[in-house]
Amino acid sequence: MNWKAIFRIQGVLLIVLSISMLFPLAFAIYYRSDDIEELSLSILISLVIGILFTLIFKSDKPLRPREGFIIVSMGWIFAALFGSLPFLFYGVFGNNYIDCFFETMSGFTTTGATVLTDIGILPKGILFWRSFTHWLGGMGIIMLTIAILPILGLSSNQLYKAEVPGPTKDKISPKIKDTAKILWYIYIGMTVLETVLLMIGKMSFFDALCHTFGTLATGGFSTSNKSVAGFNSLYIEIVILIFMYLAGTNFILHFFLIKGKFKDFFNNHEWRFYTLGLIIASLLLSLNIYFSNLYDSFSTCLRYASFQVVSITTTTGFVTADFELWPYFSKIALIILMFMGGCSGSTGGSMKQIRVMVSLKFALNEIKKLTYPRAFFSLKIGKETFGDFVIKNIVAFFILFVSIFVLTTLFLSFQGYDIVTSFSASIATLGNIGPGLSKVGAVENYAFFDNASKLVLSFNMLIGRLEIYSVLILIYTLFNPKKLH
Amino acid sequence: MNWKAIFRIQGVLLIVLSISMLFPLAFAIYYRSDDIEELSLSILISLVIGILFTLIFKSDKPLRPREGFIIVSMGWIFAALFGSLPFLFYGVFGNNYIDCFFETMSGFTTTGATVLTDIGILPKGILFWRSFTHWLGGMGIIMLTIAILPILGLSSNQLYKAEVPGPTKDKISPKIKDTAKILWYIYIGMTVLETVLLMIGKMSFFDALCHTFGTLATGGFSTSNKSVAGFNSLYIEIVILIFMYLAGTNFILHFFLIKGKFKDFFNNHEWRFYTLGLIIASLLLSLNIYFSNLYDSFSTCLRYASFQVVSITTTTGFVTADFELWPYFSKIALIILMFMGGCSGSTGGSMKQIRVMVSLKFALNEIKKLTYPRAFFSLKIGKETFGDFVIKNIVAFFILFVSIFVLTTLFLSFQGYDIVTSFSASIATLGNIGPGLSKVGAVENYAFFDNASKLVLSFNMLIGRLEIYSVLILIYTLFNPKKLH
Repeated sequence: MNWKAIFRIQGVLLIVLSISMLFPLAFAIYYRSDDIEELSLSILISLVIGILFTLIFKSDKPLRPREGFIIVSMGWIFAALFGSLPFLFYGVFGNNYIDCFFETMSGFTTTGATVLTDIGILPKGILFWRSFTHWLGGMGIIMLTIAILPILGLSSNQLYKAEVPGPTKDKISPKIKDTAKILWYIYIGMTVLETVLLMIGKMSFFDALCHTFGTLATGGFSTSNKSVAGFNSLYIEIVILIFMYLAGTNFILHFFLIKGKFKDFFNNHEWRFYTLGLIIASLLLSLNIYFSNLYDSFSTCLRYASFQVVSITTTTGFVTADFELWPYFSKIALIILMFMGGCSGSTGGSMKQIRVMVSLKFALNEIKKLTYPRAFFSLKIGKETFGDFVIKNIVAFFILFVSIFVLTTLFLSFQGYDIVTSFSASIATLGNIGPGLSKVGAVENYAFFDNASKLVLSFNMLIGRLEIYSVLILIYTLFNPKKLH
Repeated sequence: MNWKAIFRIQGVLLIVLSISMLFPLAFAIYYRSDDIEELSLSILISLVIGILFTLIFKSDKPLRPREGFIIVSMGWIFAALFGSLPFLFYGVFGNNYIDCFFETMSGFTTTGATVLTDIGILPKGILFWRSFTHWLGGMGIIMLTIAILPILGLSSNQLYKAEVPGPTKDKISPKIKDTAKILWYIYIGMTVLETVLLMIGKMSFFDALCHTFGTLATGGFSTSNKSVAGFNSLYIEIVILIFMYLAGTNFILHFFLIKGKFKDFFNNHEWRFYTLGLIIASLLLSLNIYFSNLYDSFSTCLRYASFQVVSITTTTGFVTADFELWPYFSKIALIILMFMGGCSGSTGGSMKQIRVMVSLKFALNEIKKLTYPRAFFSLKIGKETFGDFVIKNIVAFFILFVSIFVLTTLFLSFQGYDIVTSFSASIATLGNIGPGLSKVGAVENYAFFDNASKLVLSFNMLIGRLEIYSVLILIYTLFNPKKLH
């Protein structure tokens, strides 16, 4: 294992991180809030350690896929470790560093689960940083999509195919940079657009920007204790709903849209499955809460149900209604949607729509195979045929995802938390959603958990965000040092 | 599809069923209970319809695997339909036929979930029939193990291998009969042994026999409203615990034991995993309930924890303590054990230990593959290497099992049942266990469910008992009539 190269890149990342912290510093200076010193100190520490890393660790060897996985996992851990310094220095959580780490990991993994009981106590600089970690994390995910997902077979090859007919291996490396650029432009463009639209809805520039970060990264951190409900504006809810939906869509499809390739857009079966699922779930939940007489009109039910369905499915976690009060069916449906997550190539987390589709289709194919043992059934989604390598990877992901969900649930119940809290906190972190049910419900937070649980849940967010494999490969490598070569 | 042959075999089965009902009739006559007429009528109806079926449907064509699956599924449905007649005629559940069907399906699938609120009201003949359906179901499962499992790759080939070196295809057909005979002898032998041992513990012959049926089929129907707790005897608990454990073990291993092939026995990795799992789970739960000060001594905790762990894992469902009162960790652990189930080739239900082992190993192998893309990792359990065909089948089973569990949970929550009741009733029926948590907890029953839910849960028991595929192939065939050929 080329550890030198791995640590060198961590150094570069820390330098980028320290530069990123200049933005919250600027806000702190503008608003004259009392966190200027703390932010400056965090910037300095990250910068110095980052530079030290790049000076100490040098390597020219080319990187192999497994090193790519490890760089990504460690990258997120380093970002959370150093990104939490402003919280620590300001004493947001007293001297509990684990709370700082949890909050920052929740930010960078775009989960949005918070251990803050009152957001109002945060000074503007740190409040901005908290939301900005979402946006940076989302940008990282887009990079991940391009660099890691092709190895898992869930590739963004579609974009290459769309641009260059038959790319050769040599061409891929510069192509990755181009792809990244295009997707980042889309990400930044959508950021500007949503911020402006929210400001039209009479949000302040600061709030609009922070909520945009939370939306596009499918994060969910708000500047209000009541989340989006705090703004009490149908217009704002609709803007955020639309952008959550867009953030949960494959970004390559946005590129198709911009290029006017509507056919490529509408022919994407994952997008169809995702969109149809959202519509059906919204209608079912609207009816379910309508008939339980929770709100006065069906339109109100539709408003709350659709927002919560889109927010949970895209793994954003913004809240406009306390779904803890909803009937059991709606709550179970939301839990199931938590497992689905966004589309591949989106900033959404959890299993992802395509993996659910492939897993179910694979299982149903087995029934056909047993019925007609001599026939051959290939696994097709739209026009794309999935090969054995990719199917196995996806199905193994399904099993690993469920297993980690079960283990975390078991751990939390061991710590004494009730059954619904345990399993919903488990999926809400593993799927990078944020809110769950019971004690981690819509209007609750994660502050009451003990430190061990907070660490496990932080780790859960990391595993979920990095497509499980990245983190498990790191663990596997660390526990099998003999095989390192 | 050779429907004539399929219905002809159902006719034979109905004749066998009517003959089986002579046993409860004998008990009814012996005890002079008031259900002699009802049993006689049930016998007559089953016999007449059975004979009619064999006269009407005639076919000489050889059967194909898919017809085998359909025969099995329909066999259990017919058995439940006609086996419920004594309950109906006696009016055990007033005139609610669905309750009768649920109770009988629960018996034949060896689930042990009951809709009876007071077992005491049953006359001896019908009470015996209720437990006897377990024993018949268990016998059917052994047949299934030999006939169906080899098609899924989870074969009882080990027995052929042990007996005949290198069997040719022609030899398998007579061999199946021999295997079936051996395993049935073991089943009957264990029945005699447990009945005698329970009678030594001062159980009446009637109660001993009924509890033996419930144990060896991993069923769980008791003759006492308090289940095994009603006998309040450590000796009886230990006897039942041991036989539950044996019933959850692969019956081929019992054959090895009898033949003195101890090495073959102890080298079975599924058995090791199963046994080790039971020991660890028993100890963990003992400690968990000990530290929550529920019982006065650790030995009492060990007594209750080990019985409940073995009962739930083997999918029997006998109860000696109200685990609804246990801490959350113990309850979640029991739910996880419900998914594990017995060994392959046992009468135990649910996913089965070997499937859990293979699924997890398969998923972990994918991590290794991604770390070392050029290396080849085969999936081995002990000395046995699992091929692609079997792995895919097992993994698809995992996905289907989880999917059906989720769908049933969603349905029950839609009917208005709380989250814990919904998901525990779902797995308790799909895994053929019986008791779950909350409203279907240790000392509760399934009587309060509405009729639609009872039907869905009956169907769940059937799907779980017949290794999912059998039932889904039936459904697939019925909904794709064009492809019938």
